[in-house]
Order: sequence, then structure tokens, then C-alpha cells
Amino acid sequence: MTDITRQLARFVARTSLADIPEPVRREGVRAFHNWLGCAFGGAREPPVTTALAAIREMEMPAQATVLGHDLRVDLQNAALLNCMASSLNAFDDTHLASVTHPTGPVAAAILALAEGRRVSGADFLLALILGIEVECRLANVLTLPPARGNVGFYMTGLVGGIGAAVATGKLLGLDEQRMIWALGIAASHASGFREAHATMSLGYVPGHAARTGLFAAQFAAKGFTNSEVALEGPKGFANVFADPPNLAAAVDGLGQRFEVMANAYKPYPCGIVIHPQIDACLEIAGTPGFDATNIERVELTVEPLTLTLCDRPEPQNAMQAVVSLYHWVAAALLYRKAGLDEGVDARVRDPAMIAMRRRIKVVADPSLAREEAKATVIFKDGSARSSHVVQCRGSLTRQLTDAELQEKFLAQAVRSIPAAQAARVAELCWKLPALDDVGKQIGAALAP
Amino acid sequence: MTDITRQLARFVARTSLADIPEPVRREGVRAFHNWLGCAFGGAREPPVTTALAAIREMEMPAQATVLGHDLRVDLQNAALLNCMASSLNAFDDTHLASVTHPTGPVAAAILALAEGRRVSGADFLLALILGIEVECRLANVLTLPPARGNVGFYMTGLVGGIGAAVATGKLLGLDEQRMIWALGIAASHASGFREAHATMSLGYVPGHAARTGLFAAQFAAKGFTNSEVALEGPKGFANVFADPPNLAAAVDGLGQRFEVMANAYKPYPCGIVIHPQIDACLEIAGTPGFDATNIERVELTVEPLTLTLCDRPEPQNAMQAVVSLYHWVAAALLYRKAGLDEGVDARVRDPAMIAMRRRIKVVADPSLAREEAKATVIFKDGSARSSHVVQCRGSLTRQLTDAELQEKFLAQAVRSIPAAQAARVAELCWKLPALDDVGKQIGAALAP
Repeated sequence: MTDITRQLARFVARTSLADIPEPVRREGVRAFHNWLGCAFGGAREPPVTTALAAIREMEMPAQATVLGHDLRVDLQNAALLNCMASSLNAFDDTHLASVTHPTGPVAAAILALAEGRRVSGADFLLALILGIEVECRLANVLTLPPARGNVGFYMTGLVGGIGAAVATGKLLGLDEQRMIWALGIAASHASGFREAHATMSLGYVPGHAARTGLFAAQFAAKGFTNSEVALEGPKGFANVFADPPNLAAAVDGLGQRFEVMANAYKPYPCGIVIHPQIDACLEIAGTPGFDATNIERVELTVEPLTLTLCDRPEPQNAMQAVVSLYHWVAAALLYRKAGLDEGVDARVRDPAMIAMRRRIKVVADPSLAREEAKATVIFKDGSARSSHVVQCRGSLTRQLTDAELQEKFLAQAVRSIPAAQAARVAELCWKLPALDDVGKQIGAALAP
Repeated sequence: MTDITRQLARFVARTSLADIPEPVRREGVRAFHNWLGCAFGGAREPPVTTALAAIREMEMPAQATVLGHDLRVDLQNAALLNCMASSLNAFDDTHLASVTHPTGPVAAAILALAEGRRVSGADFLLALILGIEVECRLANVLTLPPARGNVGFYMTGLVGGIGAAVATGKLLGLDEQRMIWALGIAASHASGFREAHATMSLGYVPGHAARTGLFAAQFAAKGFTNSEVALEGPKGFANVFADPPNLAAAVDGLGQRFEVMANAYKPYPCGIVIHPQIDACLEIAGTPGFDATNIERVELTVEPLTLTLCDRPEPQNAMQAVVSLYHWVAAALLYRKAGLDEGVDARVRDPAMIAMRRRIKVVADPSLAREEAKATVIFKDGSARSSHVVQCRGSLTRQLTDAELQEKFLAQAVRSIPAAQAARVAELCWKLPALDDVGKQIGAALAP
């Protein structure tokens, strides 16, 4: 496979919204709506306020809004903070095939950009869809068989900045050649590994992608050069991050099939590989006569990636709980809910939760699908209740409805802005394709 | 090997200049002097002026000087630009064991920082030496046997930001815990691959490391958290970039042996693996009666890495020539010199050079050392002259002298600042350990 970089750049430079099928546009709107809610959901959390303390000292120019704060900073740091906010509760979207969280880096970069220039909703939506498209295709290059990468890399960190550069570059009107350079510069920033999950840096890696992707497009716009084969060259992106890569995945069906259609929205604010187990345990907890205080032990059968990513039996705080299978299974059984309120420090340290987490035994079974889980709860009297979830909520065949997305949005947004304002900005999201000026119309509603 | 991250953080937080042996301090001064000259040498080149065009549009605050320009930008972008300037002619220093160019990211970050606060020369030198130390040790983790990494990664991009974070963090007074986080945040930015060599992005990758390493320390200073085992954890830095890594190399002899002593300064502005061949051909070209116009062909025997990194037979411009073995061998034979003037576009496109490059045949021989080369020039009359270089100029046993470094500095600095100013700032570099305020004293001489 040659000229992957050029093919992608040409596709991005030449595609207009008329080339995007209506269902794909609709999914782009849903992705943006889901993203913005998640950004408000995390905007007041300690990682953001700590980062803000550092950024305020840098005395940056007031160019774009920090969501949920009455404050503007420079474009790059606004992109960083707003993407970070959307990622840190692990409630953002997931491109399931590659476990990439695609919308954050792309949306945060172009929303910051749109505050400083007139960008129509149609152009914004097109840029968003194209950014997600290239981002997810490159994630496929690193993950779809026969590709073999290192699971330690944080996929959103590897591809998110490239998506941000594509979307920013589209709005800046880059031609094919400059788009090639934007792809290369952004790829040269690809970074981040999973060891920092469960710390403030969980959301930082996607945020860094948003910031640096925006920057890459700004450099390319001025004619800053990079390789013509940055993505596919022997010492380029695909070959350093996968051995072998699946280069065909970058361009097969380009413009025909859109990756945003394979993007899912989470019903629960935690690692997506935990979701089938939550469904199973909520189902058991909802059966008549269920009493969590009588549980003797819990036996889970999970798809192996669940343990690879979320085998954290004793989380110490909310950040660690986000990627703890045990925490969320225990929460589902004890509280019969699995929302943001069930992930806070007080819940993580609740003695009843600690005791429940220790009753959980997990077995990995490669015959299970990613969306599948089996759970059995054995009670002290020897009785048992089981659940077998084949397709968890939020998976592609059980996507959240628009109404569910709206509920998710409002529940998160009120953590940062008044309820009436939350409703107004949600409405603007649904109307995205018709907006005249995204920065003026949505931008005005971002601060409390 | 456990607690690598903590051991390194503790070492950095606790070490004072009194713990650094005098020869190591002296080498730190030489490294800084060599770096600053290289930064002036590249400051007016197109990659810097193109990047400046993009950065000027960002309307950043005037916090630190862009070397060689009458302009100040924010700290991060000053670090980016000044490191980029020092790297783009490939004239900067090289940690030979790992082919890292260590001083650029570290020096550019702390020089920018020092312009905004009082930093003594002694503190600056200590921070510089510690930054280089951690940076090169982590490069060793990825390269020294049994470590196996991917040669496509650009080592300075992987470790340079960590060095910059260490040095910045030392000047910001980070304690052990915050230094751990600074290491982790900086490691999460580790990025860059060699496909973009021979483009403007050659210097951009180290520059990005300088910028983001500085940023990492500023975040950690505010308490922004990362993993406690970011470097050694199973999904951390060492394990994603090498399989296996050599973790012992991070801490063996820490505080006893200093990596800056294994750092070399280039006599020629090109890929360091080309240097032994340049020496060999300069030697042949210097023999009595040598006439380049009579050359029939040139036969080179090289260490294999030379071809891995610099097998570029037909460079099209100065940026490609930097990493072209053929270009510099041809230049040594045709011009009997190999300086900045021999690397410009006009030389690359000189028909005599093009013809000479095509006469060169190369064989890789794994029995050769990195510093070794064999060259034979066969003339049209059938006669031949040979040279066998065992230790090339600039290698550790043939380090450039202070006088040679001074000559190299001045030749580069006059490309950006007046000669008298160049001499003055070179003098300040040699006096670094005694300076009261690096930002005021050296900073005042950075702009033309």
C-alpha cells in the first residue's frame, strides 16, 4: 500500500458535506452532542482545575472558552482543557473496533477554533466527521487483524491528534499538499500509554492530542513541511506503532463507509470493557427479592481484554475506579445504579463497596465477544442468580437513543452550568447543521 | 526493576552541584556552548521562519526570546523554536550509544524559563546536566542490549521531553513526588519517527520535545498527577517503546557515572553515522596530486547503521542532504570541506555533485565499529587511494577541543547575530557556572 497519506489528504481536501450520507451526518451530530455533554460533565473536576492553575500562570491570550468556566485561554490550551474535561470521567464515545475515543480531540480543537472565526454548522459538522473518519481509520490500521500493536499505547493519544489536525485543516481550507503535511506533523506527536490511566493524566493524553493536532494544522497552513509518506513510510506512523500494520484499513471503502457509524456512546462512566458486566449485574440486582447484603460471592466470565485494561481489584480513588471492573460490578449490585454519582471518592471508599469488591471472582474466556458477559451471584443461603448479556447497552446494536443521549447530556451539563442553559446548548447541538456561526451561537453558552 | 521512576525523581530532586564532579560540570558547559552555537546557526533557516509565521498569528505573550530574531513569544514556543533551530542543520551534539541529541530540548526549555526569573549559572548548569543525564539514561533503556526498539522512532523525540521536564522541574524546585509526575507527564508526550527526516520536521521533533517537556514540569508543579511507575510499569514508557527494555540502564551507577561524558560534538553538519566516511574522504582528498575530476568510482565500507539511517543516494535539497551519505562523501572529495556551506541547496544541485554521488558504491559490514570507515577512490587511470578511519573526528576518543568548539560556535553564530555579539555570548557560555542571572546576562545577547 503506497500513498496512503496522499489518498487521505486528497479525500479530506475534496469532500464536501453533500458527499456525506444523511445517516452519517446525523451520527456526527449525535457524536458532538454526546461529546459536549461529557465535556461539561468533567469541566469542574480536579484534573481540569489543576491544569487551569498551571495555565493561568502562563498568561495566555483570551482566545477561546474553557467550558464551564468564566475564562478564556489560548486556542491550544482551550482545546487541551475541553478535551480533557470530556475524557476524564471515561464517559465519552468509543470507536469499538479500536477502543479509540474519537470525538474529543477533534471537537475540542475545532470548537476552540470556531470561537475566533465564523464557522457554519455545516462546515463544522463536515470537519468533525472527516476528522473522526481519518482518526478511526488510522486506529484500524494499528488494530484490525493482521495488525499487531502494543496494547500499552493509548490509542486515542496515537490517532486523536491526527483527527484534530484533519478537522482543523479542513476549516482552515488546507489544500491536498498542506493536508499531507498536517497529517505528518500531527502523526509526529502521536503518544501516550495506559500506565497513566487512573491518574489525572487519563484525560490529559486525549487533551494533548487535541492541542497538538490543532497546532499541526496551523503549522501546515503556513507551509511547514513533513514527509509525503508520514503514515505509510517504512519509518513512519503505521510501521512504528504496529508490526505489521493493516495499511489497507486506511483507505478501503474511503468515502463509502464511515467510521462514525461504528462509534458508540456509553451509558456508564467507566472503561467500556466493563459495560457488559454492569448490564448483567444490574439485571440480577433488579430481580424481585434481590438483597445485596446476602451476597456470598460473585462469579464473572469476561472477554479477556476486560482484564487487560480494567483488572484493578482495589481502587483507591475515583480516578482508579474509572478503570476498575470490580468497582462498577460492586456498584451495580449495591446501588443498582452506575452513573457519575456511583464513581465518586466516597463511593470508592465506602466499606460496603470495599467488602463487595472482594467477593468478586473473574475468569477470562476468549470465546466471549466484547459486548458479552456472564455473571452469577451466589447468596449466603446457597441460592444463585445468573445473567448472560449478549449485547450490552450502548453497543452498536443497542445504541443509546436520542432521548437517552439528551438525558445523559443534561445530567452532566448541570454539573457546570445552570439547567436552563444546559437545555439551550443541548438544543443548539441538535441543530448543529443549521447554525450560522458555531462560535457565536454555541460559544456564547459554554461559560456558566 | 521496580521504582525506576521514583529513583530517578529522587536523584534529581536531591542532587546539588557539589555532587557533580568537576569534569562533568565542564562537559556540561561545553554541551551548552555547542548547543547555543548550533541554535544561532539554524535560527534564520526556513523551518524556523515558517514556524514563526504560524506562531506570530497565535498572538502569544512576549515571554522569551526567539534566538537570532528581535522577537519574544511564549515560553513553550520559544523552547520549540530555539531547539528546532539547533537541530535542523544536524550539527547538534550526539549521545553516541543511543544516537540521541540530548542538549537541545533541555537547554532550550530552561533558557526560555530563565528569561522570566532569576536563575544562576550554577543552578542552570546543574539542571542542564541532570536533564541530559535522565534523558540519555532513558535512551539507553531503549537501546542498550538486550533492549530492542524500533529504529523508526526518533530517539530525541522519545526522551528529549523527559530531559526538558527534569531540568525545568529542577529549576522550579519540584520535590520528589512532583518530579515523579513531571517524568510521567513528559513521558506521555514521547513521540516522533524518522520518516520526517529530510523535511522541515527534522528539527521539529526535538523542538516539540523541548516545548512539551517544559509544559510537563509546569503542570506537575501545580500537582497534576501521573502514574508512580510511568517509566517502568507494564504499560509504561520503557515497555511500549522497547521489547524488552533495559531497565537497569536507567539507574546503574546513578550519580557515579554521568552520560554527558559520553556526549560528542559534531565537526560536520550532517547525520553522525556519515562522519567516519567524511574523514576518510577528506584524508584521501588531501593527499598530494589528488584530482577529483579524475575519479572513476568510490567504494565505501560502512557500519550497517549508516545505511539504515542515511542511505539517500539522490538528495533533492539541503534538508535531504543532511541525512545523505552520498552527498557528504561527494562534497568531501569535490570541495575538500564539509561545513554548512557545503550543505546548501546550490551544492546539492551542483551537476558535479550529482555526477560524483552516482560514482559512490557502498557496502555495509557489521564488523566495523560506529566510528570506523574504509574508503577507496579508484581513478580513471586505474590507480587507487585508500583510507581506513578507526576513530573519526568528534568521537569520544577524538573529542573536539574547546578551541574547535569556539570556532564552530562563531562560524554559526554570525549567521544570526553580529560577530562582536557572537564573541561576547560565546564568552558568557564559557563562564556559565559563574553567572549571576542567566536570563539577564545571556538572554540580553540572544537577539540581533
